[in-house]
Amino acid sequence: MTDLETRHDILDEYIERFSNWGRWGDDDQIGTANHITPAMVCDAARLVRSGQVVSLALHFDQRGPQTGANGRFNCLRYSVATGSDHELGLQRWAGAPLPRQMGFADDTVVLHLQSATHWDSLCHIFHRGRMYNGYPASEFGAQGSARNGTETLKAKLVGRGVLLDVPRSKGVPWLQDGYAITAEDLEAAAEHGRVTVGDGDILLLRTGQMARCFEQGWGTYAGGDAPGLSFHTIPWLAEHNVAAVASDTWGCEVRPNELPDSFQPFHIPALVYMGLLIGEMFNLEELAEACAEDGMYEMLVSAPPLPFTGTAGGPPGPVAIR
Amino acid sequence: MTDLETRHDILDEYIERFSNWGRWGDDDQIGTANHITPAMVCDAARLVRSGQVVSLALHFDQRGPQTGANGRFNCLRYSVATGSDHELGLQRWAGAPLPRQMGFADDTVVLHLQSATHWDSLCHIFHRGRMYNGYPASEFGAQGSARNGTETLKAKLVGRGVLLDVPRSKGVPWLQDGYAITAEDLEAAAEHGRVTVGDGDILLLRTGQMARCFEQGWGTYAGGDAPGLSFHTIPWLAEHNVAAVASDTWGCEVRPNELPDSFQPFHIPALVYMGLLIGEMFNLEELAEACAEDGMYEMLVSAPPLPFTGTAGGPPGPVAIR
Amino acid sequence: MTDLETRHDILDEYIERFSNWGRWGDDDQIGTANHITPAMVCDAARLVRSGQVVSLALHFDQRGPQTGANGRFNCLRYSVATGSDHELGLQRWAGAPLPRQMGFADDTVVLHLQSATHWDSLCHIFHRGRMYNGYPASEFGAQGSARNGTETLKAKLVGRGVLLDVPRSKGVPWLQDGYAITAEDLEAAAEHGRVTVGDGDILLLRTGQMARCFEQGWGTYAGGDAPGLSFHTIPWLAEHNVAAVASDTWGCEVRPNELPDSFQPFHIPALVYMGLLIGEMFNLEELAEACAEDGMYEMLVSAPPLPFTGTAGGPPGPVAIR
Amino acid sequence: MTDLETRHDILDEYIERFSNWGRWGDDDQIGTANHITPAMVCDAARLVRSGQVVSLALHFDQRGPQTGANGRFNCLRYSVATGSDHELGLQRWAGAPLPRQMGFADDTVVLHLQSATHWDSLCHIFHRGRMYNGYPASEFGAQGSARNGTETLKAKLVGRGVLLDVPRSKGVPWLQDGYAITAEDLEAAAEHGRVTVGDGDILLLRTGQMARCFEQGWGTYAGGDAPGLSFHTIPWLAEHNVAAVASDTWGCEVRPNELPDSFQPFHIPALVYMGLLIGEMFNLEELAEACAEDGMYEMLVSAPPLPFTGTAGGPPGPVAIR
Repeated sequence: MTDLETRHDILDEYIERFSNWGRWGDDDQIGTANHITPAMVCDAARLVRSGQVVSLALHFDQRGPQTGANGRFNCLRYSVATGSDHELGLQRWAGAPLPRQMGFADDTVVLHLQSATHWDSLCHIFHRGRMYNGYPASEFGAQGSARNGTETLKAKLVGRGVLLDVPRSKGVPWLQDGYAITAEDLEAAAEHGRVTVGDGDILLLRTGQMARCFEQGWGTYAGGDAPGLSFHTIPWLAEHNVAAVASDTWGCEVRPNELPDSFQPFHIPALVYMGLLIGEMFNLEELAEACAEDGMYEMLVSAPPLPFTGTAGGPPGPVAIR
Repeated sequence: MTDLETRHDILDEYIERFSNWGRWGDDDQIGTANHITPAMVCDAARLVRSGQVVSLALHFDQRGPQTGANGRFNCLRYSVATGSDHELGLQRWAGAPLPRQMGFADDTVVLHLQSATHWDSLCHIFHRGRMYNGYPASEFGAQGSARNGTETLKAKLVGRGVLLDVPRSKGVPWLQDGYAITAEDLEAAAEHGRVTVGDGDILLLRTGQMARCFEQGWGTYAGGDAPGLSFHTIPWLAEHNVAAVASDTWGCEVRPNELPDSFQPFHIPALVYMGLLIGEMFNLEELAEACAEDGMYEMLVSAPPLPFTGTAGGPPGPVAIR
Repeated sequence: MTDLETRHDILDEYIERFSNWGRWGDDDQIGTANHITPAMVCDAARLVRSGQVVSLALHFDQRGPQTGANGRFNCLRYSVATGSDHELGLQRWAGAPLPRQMGFADDTVVLHLQSATHWDSLCHIFHRGRMYNGYPASEFGAQGSARNGTETLKAKLVGRGVLLDVPRSKGVPWLQDGYAITAEDLEAAAEHGRVTVGDGDILLLRTGQMARCFEQGWGTYAGGDAPGLSFHTIPWLAEHNVAAVASDTWGCEVRPNELPDSFQPFHIPALVYMGLLIGEMFNLEELAEACAEDGMYEMLVSAPPLPFTGTAGGPPGPVAIR
Repeated sequence: MTDLETRHDILDEYIERFSNWGRWGDDDQIGTANHITPAMVCDAARLVRSGQVVSLALHFDQRGPQTGANGRFNCLRYSVATGSDHELGLQRWAGAPLPRQMGFADDTVVLHLQSATHWDSLCHIFHRGRMYNGYPASEFGAQGSARNGTETLKAKLVGRGVLLDVPRSKGVPWLQDGYAITAEDLEAAAEHGRVTVGDGDILLLRTGQMARCFEQGWGTYAGGDAPGLSFHTIPWLAEHNVAAVASDTWGCEVRPNELPDSFQPFHIPALVYMGLLIGEMFNLEELAEACAEDGMYEMLVSAPPLPFTGTAGGPPGPVAIR
């Protein structure tokens, strides 16, 4: 048996074993978000103890991680109206000066939806001409996607969040680029947080790479090498019925990739076949500090993406409520 | 005394009586969001009973309310990569074909931040050369704002939400354009929902205008006449220490405006001086149905805006959790 | 024989008779621009008599003809830096104040390339999966076109221009919407201008519709009914070996279209098969005045589009030099 | 006398000696473009000998020189409709499939107007609160400029072009970064081309820096060190009544700058006070080859910028016609 056949076996095996196509109906568009039941949301709300709200988002601006490669750039922002113009008495609205010494500001942004903190929607990745639940890839054309667009998630991704702080559980400030997080690592991080990962959980997976970048600069963060989930955590994620995994790296999975002749192969069984919701570039630093301080690693998470219709992903205004 | 002096008195009187400049420190940038304490967030979490999650957002796409007037347009979305190209075997990443029959889609949006569901940040409106808390208006220049930008709210606007369904409390499907909602109307709507408005509440103010537009088309919704808060509700809002008011109209306050020679005058004492967080174009229809059904008009709201740095406002991925 | 068969015959007949696929080589990307020889450019330069330079461009701004339909909108412009900020002493470059009391302004535009004055490039229209010269339509994917992009025309569309002022030759201020300009009309307009249309000419076709819009507002100009070339002028255009036709309407051909069950059918034989360069929304008003005044209807035209790589069209900075 | 006073003297001296404010009327907005008379355009047209047309533009795409610094990025292009979607039978127009097997492509670009080949308009630079001809800098606000915008040049910058190939006249492939081109160098380059620079000329100033970048990569081309005009060429340019100078560098003048405590100081007397039209990032490589081959260094240039209303500059579709 050749190498090529071997690696085909693993990818294909995971696809076959863990595909959720049809599991929640032929018209399902939200994948593993189905694991979150209303009862779980209630239970998650009960986890709020101190009332602390922690943002999990990067700021959207020119100081972000993107370099422009692959058409991905940091958010461009433009002033449509400014306070300077107001201060100089130059503003108008609908052709006339504004009455009563009033002024205003407006802005427009040009935003690549994968450029900072975001969820991949279930039309972000294709395999063999199909997207999640078997819809043809060509449903995503120049006008965006008729299925699996971000808008389908606008009331989802609210539930129990569990911070898995892998570097802290190992006693290091961050994992090294190329470190493949195993199922055992996930279990150890859960144990370190005294939580048990279960159905419908939103896993917040800290690798520490972003902490390193905050110290040392973004470097090749966007699209480069990274610590992240091993391809072989797929069975564990499937068996635990997690709703989502959001990490502090650009692509969630380890880079360089583990399978030969592959590019982000974890995304194929996970996103295309399981319909696993994957979050990327979540800022987990403040949350990790808070959890380390009080030892509470479970929380209510509210992180629905903005409903940009027909898109391959979208940014949430994500918060952990503790 | 002339008319001009009279009306100056009212605007000036409200500014003097209700200004919060300095109330939360000289460096405060979040205004009435300060009213929400951690204890209130805890209490709000206890309101979750059924685990139902309801989105309060419009979809961001070309079907939105904007007409292009005043530089405001409906969200433009572009495909950076498509499933069609994947299906035809034409995709590449970093210059090479994608291995293992994989494909992907990406999008970029051009988004006017006030074009659909959004919070005004506290640098959105100026008066006499100043923004909230007395900062010079010119701190908002071509590069955006150094103060009061949307990013300051990234962990705020989570708390107790109260739906004030004014038309339902009056037994009508929607309020007419030009109807000025009074403090008495707010009280009656609260009573209809068997809630008492109090400190730190996030008021969700339904006028029904959006319901009418869903039936009849947007028409002049964006920037035109509308039902909305009377200028004279300011004392009531201030005295109740509400954290925020989010309505289903483009500008929250009644149009045509009540004060002569004015344009959105409520925004001056409310946003510039009180630092009141104002939400606009929230979609409250599904929520109103749910509340009418089970009679529960209070809930946990999670609606922090995306942290677009230095902007005059920003869209949240807002949800009511019930 | 049914109607359907009849009309197929006409479209197919023109395609067969007038296709230029392969005429200038299997790798040609500029179509009828090949008709312009260097000698013709020399001759055209000799037509310059007074040294008058007339712009043929609409301004690119929010006052343009687009309504937002079909994803086409008027040019958005944003200030990256302003004189107001300079005047208030607030500008910085690379993080530091600008020395010596200097200031600057910069702008970014968001421009739909078909929104105002532009040339269609030869990848703008497809037929049966092909673009001009037989290249597969799929060479135009999400990343733009590998062939026939606007950049191929960056040194083309310079030559003899001939103004065909059809309404003036008929003694009317403008042609009515729906008026189909015939080959006879073109001949009459040439005669009126005392010119003979010939090889390599850039025809500037005035219908007067834009003059009417300047008087009465844009209305449905963009995408609506219009006077324009009859489908049946194709033989005349082909036989005269014209290099290009640029008109003052949005789509050059008459609307409503003449063939049943069709949308802009002229574009199929003309652009896809002949490779005819088609210019749209050219502002011919000032030129028409100048030509009427001195009776000179031929001139040097310089109108190469900006080389936006891989695009379906692009705006020139077009001038008539007389 | 201190150093500071000395250098103030030079800048102030040039401003005083060479200011053209009011020279062409209090409402002039085109500066040295006034030097070009219709007779000169006629004469320039007579220079066309072979009919060769050479583009002077860089392509507008992601392969351009910008790095993202200072808000300047390479042109972003998005497909609004694609041939791939057509090929798969998925395209629609106005909600319906396109008849007769027709398809189309459209594009939108996001373009920083100073990112590639462009003219600075006369509202690009300010000094002491003023722009060219004394207009207040604050006329350029968030909505763009009320004066001196690019649209004023839409029928200008057509005339006699003279290529000054400085490196070729010196026998080197390119000038080194930091090399300050003197008036003597300009004279020598003119002599090398057997031309005399005179009234209304459009100087095409080749430094060879772009040739080096084509060989070695852009590196710090955008905003970095460069060969270019010495500050002290201002008297020569003023005395020769040139209409414009367009070079193959990002900023036309030498970098590092010659005056202490300065940033692009040449732009102050030249653009703000003389109203000199400055072109940047012109691609003169093909033209230089052509001129070297036949020894003809004068030509007709047609290079009006696109009339983007109220902008600080704009790209032309520039050609030399020889």
